Amino acid sequence: MILVLNGPNLNRLGKRQPEIYGHTTLADVEARVGELARELGAAVEFRQSNHEGQLIDWVHEAAENGWQVIINPGGYTHTSVALRDALVEVEFIEVHISNVHAREPFRAHSYLSPVAKGVIAGLGTKGYELALRSFVEEVS
Amino acid sequence: MILVLNGPNLNRLGKRQPEIYGHTTLADVEARVGELARELGAAVEFRQSNHEGQLIDWVHEAAENGWQVIINPGGYTHTSVALRDALVEVEFIEVHISNVHAREPFRAHSYLSPVAKGVIAGLGTKGYELALRSFVEEVS
Amino acid sequence: MILVLNGPNLNRLGKRQPEIYGHTTLADVEARVGELARELGAAVEFRQSNHEGQLIDWVHEAAENGWQVIINPGGYTHTSVALRDALVEVEFIEVHISNVHAREPFRAHSYLSPVAKGVIAGLGTKGYELALRSFVEEVS
Amino acid sequence: MILVLNGPNLNRLGKRQPEIYGHTTLADVEARVGELARELGAAVEFRQSNHEGQLIDWVHEAAENGWQVIINPGGYTHTSVALRDALVEVEFIEVHISNVHAREPFRAHSYLSPVAKGVIAGLGTKGYELALRSFVEEVS
Amino acid sequence: MILVLNGPNLNRLGKRQPEIYGHTTLADVEARVGELARELGAAVEFRQSNHEGQLIDWVHEAAENGWQVIINPGGYTHTSVALRDALVEVEFIEVHISNVHAREPFRAHSYLSPVAKGVIAGLGTKGYELALRSFVEEVS
Amino acid sequence: MILVLNGPNLNRLGKRQPEIYGHTTLADVEARVGELARELGAAVEFRQSNHEGQLIDWVHEAAENGWQVIINPGGYTHTSVALRDALVEVEFIEVHISNVHAREPFRAHSYLSPVAKGVIAGLGTKGYELALRSFVEEVS
Amino acid sequence: MILVLNGPNLNRLGKRQPEIYGHTTLADVEARVGELARELGAAVEFRQSNHEGQLIDWVHEAAENGWQVIINPGGYTHTSVALRDALVEVEFIEVHISNVHAREPFRAHSYLSPVAKGVIAGLGTKGYELALRSFVEEVS
Amino acid sequence: MILVLNGPNLNRLGKRQPEIYGHTTLADVEARVGELARELGAAVEFRQSNHEGQLIDWVHEAAENGWQVIINPGGYTHTSVALRDALVEVEFIEVHISNVHAREPFRAHSYLSPVAKGVIAGLGTKGYELALRSFVEEVS
Amino acid sequence: MILVLNGPNLNRLGKRQPEIYGHTTLADVEARVGELARELGAAVEFRQSNHEGQLIDWVHEAAENGWQVIINPGGYTHTSVALRDALVEVEFIEVHISNVHAREPFRAHSYLSPVAKGVIAGLGTKGYELALRSFVEEVS
Amino acid sequence: MILVLNGPNLNRLGKRQPEIYGHTTLADVEARVGELARELGAAVEFRQSNHEGQLIDWVHEAAENGWQVIINPGGYTHTSVALRDALVEVEFIEVHISNVHAREPFRAHSYLSPVAKGVIAGLGTKGYELALRSFVEEVS
Amino acid sequence: MILVLNGPNLNRLGKRQPEIYGHTTLADVEARVGELARELGAAVEFRQSNHEGQLIDWVHEAAENGWQVIINPGGYTHTSVALRDALVEVEFIEVHISNVHAREPFRAHSYLSPVAKGVIAGLGTKGYELALRSFVEEVS
Amino acid sequence: MILVLNGPNLNRLGKRQPEIYGHTTLADVEARVGELARELGAAVEFRQSNHEGQLIDWVHEAAENGWQVIINPGGYTHTSVALRDALVEVEFIEVHISNVHAREPFRAHSYLSPVAKGVIAGLGTKGYELALRSFVEEVS
Repeated sequence: MILVLNGPNLNRLGKRQPEIYGHTTLADVEARVGELARELGAAVEFRQSNHEGQLIDWVHEAAENGWQVIINPGGYTHTSVALRDALVEVEFIEVHISNVHAREPFRAHSYLSPVAKGVIAGLGTKGYELALRSFVEEVS
Repeated sequence: MILVLNGPNLNRLGKRQPEIYGHTTLADVEARVGELARELGAAVEFRQSNHEGQLIDWVHEAAENGWQVIINPGGYTHTSVALRDALVEVEFIEVHISNVHAREPFRAHSYLSPVAKGVIAGLGTKGYELALRSFVEEVS
Repeated sequence: MILVLNGPNLNRLGKRQPEIYGHTTLADVEARVGELARELGAAVEFRQSNHEGQLIDWVHEAAENGWQVIINPGGYTHTSVALRDALVEVEFIEVHISNVHAREPFRAHSYLSPVAKGVIAGLGTKGYELALRSFVEEVS
Repeated sequence: MILVLNGPNLNRLGKRQPEIYGHTTLADVEARVGELARELGAAVEFRQSNHEGQLIDWVHEAAENGWQVIINPGGYTHTSVALRDALVEVEFIEVHISNVHAREPFRAHSYLSPVAKGVIAGLGTKGYELALRSFVEEVS
Repeated sequence: MILVLNGPNLNRLGKRQPEIYGHTTLADVEARVGELARELGAAVEFRQSNHEGQLIDWVHEAAENGWQVIINPGGYTHTSVALRDALVEVEFIEVHISNVHAREPFRAHSYLSPVAKGVIAGLGTKGYELALRSFVEEVS
Repeated sequence: MILVLNGPNLNRLGKRQPEIYGHTTLADVEARVGELARELGAAVEFRQSNHEGQLIDWVHEAAENGWQVIINPGGYTHTSVALRDALVEVEFIEVHISNVHAREPFRAHSYLSPVAKGVIAGLGTKGYELALRSFVEEVS
Repeated sequence: MILVLNGPNLNRLGKRQPEIYGHTTLADVEARVGELARELGAAVEFRQSNHEGQLIDWVHEAAENGWQVIINPGGYTHTSVALRDALVEVEFIEVHISNVHAREPFRAHSYLSPVAKGVIAGLGTKGYELALRSFVEEVS
Repeated sequence: MILVLNGPNLNRLGKRQPEIYGHTTLADVEARVGELARELGAAVEFRQSNHEGQLIDWVHEAAENGWQVIINPGGYTHTSVALRDALVEVEFIEVHISNVHAREPFRAHSYLSPVAKGVIAGLGTKGYELALRSFVEEVS
Repeated sequence: MILVLNGPNLNRLGKRQPEIYGHTTLADVEARVGELARELGAAVEFRQSNHEGQLIDWVHEAAENGWQVIINPGGYTHTSVALRDALVEVEFIEVHISNVHAREPFRAHSYLSPVAKGVIAGLGTKGYELALRSFVEEVS
Repeated sequence: MILVLNGPNLNRLGKRQPEIYGHTTLADVEARVGELARELGAAVEFRQSNHEGQLIDWVHEAAENGWQVIINPGGYTHTSVALRDALVEVEFIEVHISNVHAREPFRAHSYLSPVAKGVIAGLGTKGYELALRSFVEEVS
Repeated sequence: MILVLNGPNLNRLGKRQPEIYGHTTLADVEARVGELARELGAAVEFRQSNHEGQLIDWVHEAAENGWQVIINPGGYTHTSVALRDALVEVEFIEVHISNVHAREPFRAHSYLSPVAKGVIAGLGTKGYELALRSFVEEVS
Repeated sequence: MILVLNGPNLNRLGKRQPEIYGHTTLADVEARVGELARELGAAVEFRQSNHEGQLIDWVHEAAENGWQVIINPGGYTHTSVALRDALVEVEFIEVHISNVHAREPFRAHSYLSPVAKGVIAGLGTKGYELALRSFVEEVS
């Protein structure tokens, strides 16, 4: 199974700063990714939380079950060693909707990237689909 | 409405490090600010949490309802990109009871200030009242 | 008595960079603050200079007479150790009209803040009134 | 009483990165430390959470009751000013199972150590027992 | 048209450091990406050079013709302002085969990312295909 | 009108460190620039002061009158935010007689350059004439 | 003779980022500078390349023949020690069309400036003419 | 055998800065540690020197004989690569009497910790006993 | 002649921060230094100003007359390139009453020291006398 | 075979900055090294280019043929990640004629040294011969 | 008693780098300082060592006997925390013969100055005499 | 005469970290270098010490006698200003057995290299022989 985790503020996707993140909502993303998953024969599950501890709990669940993880860690990308320490137990791809390298300098550093399988940034909500393909097509 | 948020450890106000923060409790502050709000004809609501995710949830609520926010973010001031990312959706004033510039060097940096309307620091619990006036008198 | 000092370029207030500082002139500010002072029963005096040495001389006068000081140090905020060394002798509040944390990085550092009673930034010319209240209402 | 707090990912102890942390589980540690506490005539209580806010709440409980604290703050060691601000109210010893100085450079900095009574790192789960002894034998 | 540019040392793909880059050759990649392009109805062209000036010339050609660019800039990622200055004229996606964030610290900084549409790193040669999809499916 | 301002120590030109600045005096420069101005049909006025506040006052005068400014800010180049804040109101060219980049590292940073129209350095007192041409010939 | 060298991307002058560099083409510049050279009785030659090695070769040619050099090094300004090492053999003026100090921070550092005779930045394509005058009028 | 090494100034223990280090002398520590060693059935030997070279010689002796080392390196902690290079040959625990993280910033960095088995800091002279237990009880 | 210059805030000596600077006034210092000068057969003159420009003017006067200078630059020590540029023309000794190295980190850097003959710090107002001796006894 | 590569500006050896590099030409070096190679029974080949891409091409040729490389990378030492990425495929010694550590600070950093077999600097053109011996005598 | 300590290389005074340190030997200094001590009625003793440990031993002797110390720590100034830790027990003045601020940047930092009574630098061997006067005349 | 000095831990060569330094002992090196010296008609003398002060004493002896020095300073390379200050009096080559640039970052900085004649690193114990040749063959 592939667990798709969304971190803080992504529940506001489509409402918050649409000039940066666009008007697509997280539900839209979930629908599109779900459709692609069905097409590719993969199982996915979507979850979102603003709580660092909740995200860590979910990563532990993935580790326990041997799931792969696609994660958009939001602001925790740049500040959470705790999340990194959880993620080392799973194979995961880090996704950012906006191009973090074109924004404030502190967004260029991720605590998670060095332990990720890979990173996709700036390709909009399309990034989730590409991450899914990367996991699934690699297997087949 | 103006939502007054207090971050981690402010529930201990009056007990924790009184040589820095004084003996006034958060309840005292709430009472004084509430009184001033009534005098100025403004609606305020007080909330406190030690949980970063909870604070973010409340900021989303403010964004959804178009409330202004007065926030004393406590230690999350210096470490929370996630809280900043939530706060960009609202008009807010950042308040610090102590003069953060006169303490450890890491307290001089705030992730929130660059997206705040303004910042008040070092004027004790009086700072909440000044922030309230700033919001209210600007309107009238 | 409360001495209100304005540093370099504040004589241009209302003309210089109105998109940042607004259209209010220093005379307008003086009038409003004077009115509030009368209302609060406080004595205030306004002075402005572009000369660092002049500002230091005035701070010495305040120190000699035991006056409190509200100061908007303009560009000297970020560069003047000499002004800091004068100000340690008085109780003062540092005021910035614009939100210095939302501008060039060098504006985030103040030589004066660590020795100030408190700092108000980004609340426009309203900041002078809030500083006045902070001094006066604390006493009463 | 001595409260033993464990931060994020320590619920995975024995499963996560055993090449760094070994195969001992947190339950094993609790058993061993409990046994030593009985031997030394001390009262201890074990708690673990992945939530920063929860850890802060527990530290407040310790402060309220005058308990000493042994804490392994996990990834929050390097990122949590909020936890530091809570911990200044109690006497605590910071414990790390692995030698944080032999790992990534960011693990060499702790926000907590400057306000701790002391720090033990790299001595495995034995570190908890040494911390307990340090508290108890000092008293006797 | 979509121009796929490969920078220095990528002509050695499959031979150089296979433990990092794998055994796939650039010809293999070209074949696979070509096939996908045909499937998606897109036109692609592959070029490789070890010469910074040559890469710049090709980017100019793309700018002149309004082509999109997929570029794996190799070592020039971290050192070439000149290439960045050329690339601002085109819409491009930056691709890295290895996870640059998991290697030497200097590989974490890219002069190109801040002006890119997006970045894909660490997903192997699959990254080229994902970049192609990102360009093509966005249009349809 | 074009106001030519010279900052601290330039009254010593021709006497101070001639191995760096040459033997030409400021009066010589004024004469040569005046002659060129007449030739180009431009009006220029020369002033010099060692006082930061005086230079700011003069820049305000230029702002008030809509004059362009050529300024050699001497040592204030590297230390004066106050002068920068004044200069943003005028169109100005920054001139340095010596090549500041070939001297002490701190001379490579200018607070003024980012808000200047342009900068000329290292071309001796000829730099004033080039700055004058730049202003005048642009217009014609 | 005076050799006028233009580095990477300057062949795109007038097309690339006209909001920064304007609409004048390199051919226009060559014409205007050629005209001025004839007027001043000087010999000039224009060359452009995107190849660092080519630029170095041309500087060697200048060194061999005792020519002066006017160079706009484009992006190599900030990254090329090799070009600096070539240029130490000739007398040269560094020209930038845009004000490099008003753009990204990395553009404020030049490897070439410390060994240049002088630097002109931000005065548009006029800068080439001023550099020419600086060389020629100094001689006469 | 376990060799207990004390570095510079520890011969002054009990006399030098008792507000930091307490009134216990090194002889007291030796007695207490010796007693514990006997109780645990371990052999220990105490040595102290202010000479970096002497400490290195003793570490070589330990390496030659396969001894474990407990070392309080005093000021050499922060400055001695030579001592580190010697210590890599032995298994050692680094002990600091005071909490080095609560003092001057330069005391937070140790050249030795990255190659140590573990570190104990801030637990007073009790730290030596804890280190001894760590070595001995691990074996049994 | 030896000119003794005192910079900003030294007119407050004896009143300002006596716990750092002591109770001696500048007049006392002048009397004592004058007496020593008479004893040593030297001519001295005392001046004080809070204005950077005034200090520069006086240094120019010293340069013009070939005087040696003893200067306590106060806060301008750490911020004034302009004063440094003036002082390179004279032989001068920099005096600080307090030990600047034992105070805030920014006081450890002086723009003036690298071009001074020597520096005396922390020896109280005695430092002026030692500087005088250094100049006078060197000659005899 | 041992390939001896010389980077940018080394074709000017003997002419450029002889006070740093001496009067020996690259042809002289080639002759002397060739003679030594014959004496030691080794095959060497000399090449020089100012083009980074050309040097990379040649390193690839060495990698393909299993040659060892002696390289004086000139200015690319400090700026070329691309050259480093090529060189990891071969065994090479880095040679600098001058002592790079006694010159500008940026020359102290080499992108190549961490992946080199060894480095020889400051021993003049003799360094090439020593590198040759190091390769050859190691074998015998 | 006043103990005058000289650190590494000062036994070479008069021979080593006379362009920096002059031709006076340490014996000359001892003679002159001894004469001045007799004149002032003070007891002094001179010692020199190249061994850090020896210098520490001597400082301990001074601490034990309540002596004041004048120390020229030579190269240990910039590198020895151990010497600093010894010196905190005595009242000492730090003397440098050359102006350390006018030399390599690393000489501007002293581990000892923050705990010294005062510092004299750049006044040649005269500095020892001034330090002596500072100690003695303060007493009388 | 050529003095070959070996610093701290080199007496352990062949035993300490053989995966870095190999199995050759210092006695082996001495034998091989001695043999080469005889062959080249040079006089060499080998000494080793772990004491910084001892190494300085020996360098003084070399300075006194006009000897050249080959030194492997071990860990003092990175930390000893005192040793640097001694070495400026002699002509010396710095030798490192391992490639210091391929190890911990702090090993890339040497206090000695800027005043050395040259540096050889990473060529194993062969480096001593190359240094010897460099000295001897230069003379002949």
